[in-house]
Amino acid sequence: MKEYTVVFQPGDAAVEVSAASTIMEAMDKAGIDFDFPCGGRGKCGKCRVRVLSGAGGPTAAEREILGPRELSAGTRLACAAKVHGHMSVELPQRLEHNVLMASGERNCRIEPHLKKIFVNVEKPSLSAQRSDWRRLKDSLAQYGYGTAHLDIPVALLRRLPETMRRADHCLTVVMHGSEAAGIEEHDTTAAMLGMALDIGTTTIVGYLLDLYSGKELCAVSMLNPQTRFGADVISRINFANREDGGLDKLHKAVLEAVNKLIGEAAGKAGVGREQVYGVSIAANTCMHHLFLGVNPRNIAVSPYVSAVSEPLVTGARDLNIDINPSGKIFMLPNIAGFVGADTSAVLLATELNKSQDIKLVIDIGTNGEIALGSRERMAACSAAAGPAFEGAQISGGMRGAAGAIDHVRFEAGLAYSVIGGGRPLGICGSALLDAVAGLLELGIINKRGKLLPRDQLTNAAAELKDRLVEQEGQSAFLLAGADKTGHGRPVMITQSDIRELQLAKGAIAAGIRVLMETLGIGPGDIREVLLAGAFGNYLNPRSACVIGLIPPELENKIKMIGNAAGTGAKLALLSSSEYRKAAQIAEFVEFVELGSYPGFNGIFARNTYF
Amino acid sequence: MKEYTVVFQPGDAAVEVSAASTIMEAMDKAGIDFDFPCGGRGKCGKCRVRVLSGAGGPTAAEREILGPRELSAGTRLACAAKVHGHMSVELPQRLEHNVLMASGERNCRIEPHLKKIFVNVEKPSLSAQRSDWRRLKDSLAQYGYGTAHLDIPVALLRRLPETMRRADHCLTVVMHGSEAAGIEEHDTTAAMLGMALDIGTTTIVGYLLDLYSGKELCAVSMLNPQTRFGADVISRINFANREDGGLDKLHKAVLEAVNKLIGEAAGKAGVGREQVYGVSIAANTCMHHLFLGVNPRNIAVSPYVSAVSEPLVTGARDLNIDINPSGKIFMLPNIAGFVGADTSAVLLATELNKSQDIKLVIDIGTNGEIALGSRERMAACSAAAGPAFEGAQISGGMRGAAGAIDHVRFEAGLAYSVIGGGRPLGICGSALLDAVAGLLELGIINKRGKLLPRDQLTNAAAELKDRLVEQEGQSAFLLAGADKTGHGRPVMITQSDIRELQLAKGAIAAGIRVLMETLGIGPGDIREVLLAGAFGNYLNPRSACVIGLIPPELENKIKMIGNAAGTGAKLALLSSSEYRKAAQIAEFVEFVELGSYPGFNGIFARNTYF
Repeated sequence: MKEYTVVFQPGDAAVEVSAASTIMEAMDKAGIDFDFPCGGRGKCGKCRVRVLSGAGGPTAAEREILGPRELSAGTRLACAAKVHGHMSVELPQRLEHNVLMASGERNCRIEPHLKKIFVNVEKPSLSAQRSDWRRLKDSLAQYGYGTAHLDIPVALLRRLPETMRRADHCLTVVMHGSEAAGIEEHDTTAAMLGMALDIGTTTIVGYLLDLYSGKELCAVSMLNPQTRFGADVISRINFANREDGGLDKLHKAVLEAVNKLIGEAAGKAGVGREQVYGVSIAANTCMHHLFLGVNPRNIAVSPYVSAVSEPLVTGARDLNIDINPSGKIFMLPNIAGFVGADTSAVLLATELNKSQDIKLVIDIGTNGEIALGSRERMAACSAAAGPAFEGAQISGGMRGAAGAIDHVRFEAGLAYSVIGGGRPLGICGSALLDAVAGLLELGIINKRGKLLPRDQLTNAAAELKDRLVEQEGQSAFLLAGADKTGHGRPVMITQSDIRELQLAKGAIAAGIRVLMETLGIGPGDIREVLLAGAFGNYLNPRSACVIGLIPPELENKIKMIGNAAGTGAKLALLSSSEYRKAAQIAEFVEFVELGSYPGFNGIFARNTYF
Repeated sequence: MKEYTVVFQPGDAAVEVSAASTIMEAMDKAGIDFDFPCGGRGKCGKCRVRVLSGAGGPTAAEREILGPRELSAGTRLACAAKVHGHMSVELPQRLEHNVLMASGERNCRIEPHLKKIFVNVEKPSLSAQRSDWRRLKDSLAQYGYGTAHLDIPVALLRRLPETMRRADHCLTVVMHGSEAAGIEEHDTTAAMLGMALDIGTTTIVGYLLDLYSGKELCAVSMLNPQTRFGADVISRINFANREDGGLDKLHKAVLEAVNKLIGEAAGKAGVGREQVYGVSIAANTCMHHLFLGVNPRNIAVSPYVSAVSEPLVTGARDLNIDINPSGKIFMLPNIAGFVGADTSAVLLATELNKSQDIKLVIDIGTNGEIALGSRERMAACSAAAGPAFEGAQISGGMRGAAGAIDHVRFEAGLAYSVIGGGRPLGICGSALLDAVAGLLELGIINKRGKLLPRDQLTNAAAELKDRLVEQEGQSAFLLAGADKTGHGRPVMITQSDIRELQLAKGAIAAGIRVLMETLGIGPGDIREVLLAGAFGNYLNPRSACVIGLIPPELENKIKMIGNAAGTGAKLALLSSSEYRKAAQIAEFVEFVELGSYPGFNGIFARNTYF
């Protein structure tokens, strides 16, 4: 029989097929990965391609689905159109989706981890007595699964014979790599949702996405219920190891929360939770381990190693995650004990590994994760900032919640803003930064962090001298007094508060310094500073630079990028190649352990100065 | 640095390595699969190879372990000896083990499915902060797992950090392909047992084997407890589908039995059941499905398809099989609804696929599985013989148990033997065959199976004419009368018994006939007839040929091969390549559905004649 050459664009894959083969058969022969949701029966119209010459006349199915306009433009159905001459076929571009970051967006080509394939399985007969699973595999062979060894879990096998017959042999198979992860009756290819989760120590944020279009259906968040067992990573590790069944309690608490959040998101979007097939997880190393039920103990003791850093895929059922039973959980990779999968996600979102220019990425929290580098080289560390940025250990400190002073200005007298308005109840991290920066610029605090006595103040500062008070034997600056009725506590910044901030900013600044030393660069070599996370998006860049949290030379290069860990989780969920990229990034980053860095104590001490 | 060529024998794999590399490193580079139980530390002496030239002087470890005699013969330790010139290395032959069949044995090269690898994992330090799993993988890299993606189940990951530290980082990893299936403290490489099981409808037989040496430690057997839910395959399928929770009851009954049997075998051999890492299962398709908990319903209704025919590997834990938790269950492949994994096992044991000569293999039971062919082509069918061979539906019929007449001779008068001696309680299948064959040769039964009236007997038969009696309105032949005291039932062969036998032998003979037709051959082309299974090993070949159960031309070619299904299960357990071969055989065999074979009813009817 006559053979013709079919060339596929883009990619230039070429294949010889005999006359009257369908384009679908040619694709199969060329090993082109393409979905035929209706099983190549010319029903769904989802295999549109563009053909310039060499095809036979349109079939009835093509006429019905495509109509004269599409046909005259060369559009054909790959499953129906036949090869009658040498042919060039233009394949549709795969869907690219914009994944939003607070200040900018990046494209990602959608490549779902899981594929849904609708098949019309051959019915058994005395002349087709192959087993159910074999006939199903033979149907899958048209979709490129012909040569691979396919796996099926026993649990699924138990349901196969009945499901198959109840659905009159029309099945949708959920494939994960070479494993048949799920089997559903009839054509369910339309629904394929996923949830990207950023499990923070304090807050869990989730995004419900359509895995085909990449569209975000809704975002949800909740307090991490593990907080009742400890506010920070270290106290949870202690709880896991000192309390009876502590690890299990922490593990179950986060699973319950995740299940609740998925339910909430599904409800909000008006879909069923069983339509969710994939969940990606970005989290710090401790949250990552607790989610899996792995004891994070060794993260907390020298030499601070995690149990696992590699990306891990596990069945939703194995972890009791209440989504479609065939669903999979995709854990992003950790980098080190205190630089977790959340940082991998941030680096994936910011594409540091692709950048020609050197960038600095900082995610400030109780631990500040810092990464510096470009596609040439990348280093990361975790700086133990302590809780000052979150308002803890500060005399009037509180979280950035209603009633907190969140920003302070000293232009034309002292002014501050309160979250939700009204009388201030306390001060949160971003305002502490502003206040200290202002006092520093006014000369009320010196470079070593000392609140100067009234008689040493400059003229400019003298206007505020009445605010310098004594408080329990130490100097303090009165930010907001009690109200006229004498109600409420005055909000002060004490000398100890300033010392706490110095320790926190010293840790971050020293981390940045060490990373610069590691790469042999200075602040002038850094093109951009990307601030991720809640605190990073709230602080005033100028204040951060004035107090030396961030090198002052970089003030105009600071960009807020929102919840970049969440963005990274979305990317890893929508695209298997982004997920693989996260693993490459985690491998590529050089982890710098600050505790063992030569001369670190000196660097830290110097950086506590303003 | 200077490079030398190292050539490995047998196999001629050649590799270039730099001077002073160890032979172990050269093996690794050449991709040679070899075990270094002590981790290549020159401690265990298990990596002996023979080197003729090119090696450096022996190391202290080699001197200690090998001694002057081995050293002078060229024996070296691959982990210690260094390459100092072009080198030819003789690898030890892998262990070949004889697997016994009743009449003959065959060799199998031992290639365990699971490997135990003892590793000394690098301890974490501030300069080695890789995760636990990563450091373990790095240790495995020396054993050829360097480039592969390795999997670890979450359940194992949960135990990893503690196990690792408790064992001071000395671990034995149980590998199954690229999956770390188990992690044990310290060096447990010495113990690696497996159980080969043949799950019959009536009897379960198990063999406990050492997976390294292939040595059989003991054999055990028990009644399949499913018999209380139905004696044969069809009644169990009915029970599974008509009773509430019927499937589950059958599934649990066989699991319990298997667990009991494994415990019994371990007890007998004086080992712990947790030393068992692999279980292979040969069973007919229905028993196979019930073992997995898969409903066998569709096997029993036209077109008689199974849910799964492919080989399946599943975790011991997933099936609640009580062996080492990292153990795996290896299901042999089914061929069709009524030609199961037991037949695949028989064919693997008999190596029909390697035979130049055409052989006929018969496993007679309620269903007779018949296979015919050679390495060129092979066909198999299942003949519904019914229960006559097992003594059911026969007036005086019983199983081959104590009290059963098991053989009958007509030389020099009528004589019979009784199992266990004493008065006969009934007659089992083999004796029915003998009796009918004898009556046929004497002319008491004609070709159509009719017991002739006394007046039509030949002289020879006349001696027995008093034994021709009337029994409930039909002719019968009295085999054993009531005893002198009048106790006990007389044992007769009635006209209906003969009809039952005709149906049974007709089914088998017709099956053989159809297979011969399918392959286009006659009895003269068959070199050997292999009878497998309990009944096959008990019957008198001559009787089988006289009544035409087996073509008479083949009488001298009959060989009993014992429990060949059990032998096949052993082979599949000891060697992963034998297991793969079973799958190839199951694929290769052409299944012939007798019910839809053209003209089958006529063939069957003709074959009911003697």
